[in-house]
Amino acid sequence: MHRTALLSILACGLGWAQADDSQPASSNVRGAAYPRVHADLSVTFRLKAPDAKKVQLNTGSDDNGLGKGPFDMTRGEDGVWAVTTPPAIPGFHYYWFLVDGVAVNDPGSETYFGWAKESSGVEVPEKGADFYAVKDVAHGDVRVHWYFAKTTAAWRRAYVYTPAEYDRNTQARYPVLYLQHGSGEDERGWTSQGRANFILDNLIAEGKTKPMIVVMEQGYATKPGPPAAAPAGGRGQSGAFEEVVLQDLIPAIDAAYRTLPDRAHRALAGLSMGGGQALQIGLTHLDQFAWIGSFSSPLRGGLDLKTAYGGAFADAEAFGKRVRLLWFGAGTAETQMHAPALQMHQALEKAGIKNVFYESPGTSHEWQTWRRDLHEFAPLLFQ
Amino acid sequence: MHRTALLSILACGLGWAQADDSQPASSNVRGAAYPRVHADLSVTFRLKAPDAKKVQLNTGSDDNGLGKGPFDMTRGEDGVWAVTTPPAIPGFHYYWFLVDGVAVNDPGSETYFGWAKESSGVEVPEKGADFYAVKDVAHGDVRVHWYFAKTTAAWRRAYVYTPAEYDRNTQARYPVLYLQHGSGEDERGWTSQGRANFILDNLIAEGKTKPMIVVMEQGYATKPGPPAAAPAGGRGQSGAFEEVVLQDLIPAIDAAYRTLPDRAHRALAGLSMGGGQALQIGLTHLDQFAWIGSFSSPLRGGLDLKTAYGGAFADAEAFGKRVRLLWFGAGTAETQMHAPALQMHQALEKAGIKNVFYESPGTSHEWQTWRRDLHEFAPLLFQ
Repeated sequence: MHRTALLSILACGLGWAQADDSQPASSNVRGAAYPRVHADLSVTFRLKAPDAKKVQLNTGSDDNGLGKGPFDMTRGEDGVWAVTTPPAIPGFHYYWFLVDGVAVNDPGSETYFGWAKESSGVEVPEKGADFYAVKDVAHGDVRVHWYFAKTTAAWRRAYVYTPAEYDRNTQARYPVLYLQHGSGEDERGWTSQGRANFILDNLIAEGKTKPMIVVMEQGYATKPGPPAAAPAGGRGQSGAFEEVVLQDLIPAIDAAYRTLPDRAHRALAGLSMGGGQALQIGLTHLDQFAWIGSFSSPLRGGLDLKTAYGGAFADAEAFGKRVRLLWFGAGTAETQMHAPALQMHQALEKAGIKNVFYESPGTSHEWQTWRRDLHEFAPLLFQ
Repeated sequence: MHRTALLSILACGLGWAQADDSQPASSNVRGAAYPRVHADLSVTFRLKAPDAKKVQLNTGSDDNGLGKGPFDMTRGEDGVWAVTTPPAIPGFHYYWFLVDGVAVNDPGSETYFGWAKESSGVEVPEKGADFYAVKDVAHGDVRVHWYFAKTTAAWRRAYVYTPAEYDRNTQARYPVLYLQHGSGEDERGWTSQGRANFILDNLIAEGKTKPMIVVMEQGYATKPGPPAAAPAGGRGQSGAFEEVVLQDLIPAIDAAYRTLPDRAHRALAGLSMGGGQALQIGLTHLDQFAWIGSFSSPLRGGLDLKTAYGGAFADAEAFGKRVRLLWFGAGTAETQMHAPALQMHQALEKAGIKNVFYESPGTSHEWQTWRRDLHEFAPLLFQ
């Protein structure tokens, strides 16, 4: 049989789209043909639902890079509903279908813990950006590490990135970046959605970043006892998280891994809710952290430089001697986060408090912003 | 306010069931009240779908421990559909809802890669069985390890369990068990659904099992080139998997970890499809493996002891000298796997080929069988 004909038959059998410029998203499960990303970054979604009256693509929020949803999907004769979005902003975007109002994950997509549940997600590639790609470089392991937290009286799970050289250089000790996810996400977010391990692998291979350990935990913690009124849907409470970090997590990591266990070699950063936690925990415990990063984080109330964060900013000179890096990031398309972050940056500058502000061009409250944040932030650490 | 009243209000706000003997399943996402497992091991499922005409609980297969589905769910006045199953068989059971025929994962459940897609799953506890619980013992890390496979010309992801002492005893070398998942599952299955790391942690802590490395890979591999006709839905092809194991995976693991890199310290086992792979790859490469385990695996065609597996069984005496362990397991409730495995065990015994047959009481083609298999199998390795 002629090879083209054979391929055509195979393509048909696999449910492939007609020959066009599209590719299955890299975030799909093995072998799934949809969603597909086109050359212009529009994305085609499909779902079989012959008996449904209405099927929509839900993008979760107005500033999701797929565009403002929900998008109505159109029923084909085969009972398969489809929609092609406008060209998307590059990056990772959560989504799910609404089938007669019920949230339905796409069986073609891997799941990603976001929106306080396992959600579908689609990766839209950014032309020319390969800083988070799996490249031909040495790769660190991402370790699922269990430890017991006295604060919560429970075993907890941390994700721990160790750089590629860690297992070879068995005498070396490494600095540690504690890196937190956002609300509705968990300890899996930074490697699964954020590709933090590949970002670090690439930066380290290029010699741009010092080899470091990265610890990613769940930013929720409640003390034992009668249940408090937690937000519904798994978002969980973060009230005891500060205590977990200081009393349980850091000692557990310093005991299990070859860390440099002092403030000069310990950084704390996070995105959104995690950025707020980084500022709160970091700035009020400068004996523990010398490097602090806040990615797309809402600021706490107004900023009174005398009293904010336990008075950390009250003495600019002392702060400058103590803190090696205070870093803010925001995407230009996330107006609610960008303006306050820029404002804080400027107010601090004016008060003589050195800090860095980075803006991610064209991206919103999404993982592409935070991937870029990490890519900019990590090279500054521990230098 | 009286504390009972307060708790009652809180419980109401959290969507909890009325006070009864039930508990949220441990497989749920953080804070999700449903599914709930009752004291008699019946399970209550709920899904809000006000506009649906028909909602069912799908259990995937006839021998799912939840019972033979699909179970029709009943609509409440609030648009929430519910069903309580008969008492379930203990263990981990995949499930999903069918909302007017569309497969819908439960937003209250974590997702687990099975049935070639991310599926919901429910953990039904087994009274008195704590061999897979998170206990107060030293825990090994589960590492996500990336390596490049020349066979497929692609980066692949292995999950690697290192025993708790691995990072302390930096001069010690360890034997390796290669442990494979079943069809429609992947490299995450053995730790996520199977709790293999906790099983090993507990066995090692009790001194019943030698500390070992466990490597879990995806049992699918295709060589580069024009796409072959793969099974639909992400099950993938396993044609090149043998070559990946022998040419790529084992060398990569021996290079990255402190292994004992010889056949005497290398075991190969798997469940279902993975058990078939273990027999096929192991028995035809006895220069590489001295310990082989097949859990609930379908036998390949008839068993001709002279020719099967490249003639591995043709010389019973030579086989006995060479192979340290040949192990078969099956659940008594999985008739399609139990009978052939028992038959093979007996035929081999009769032919003078020493082998072990273990049966898991009352369990079917499910993870509780395979957890027990691992719990029985691992202590026999490398002794």
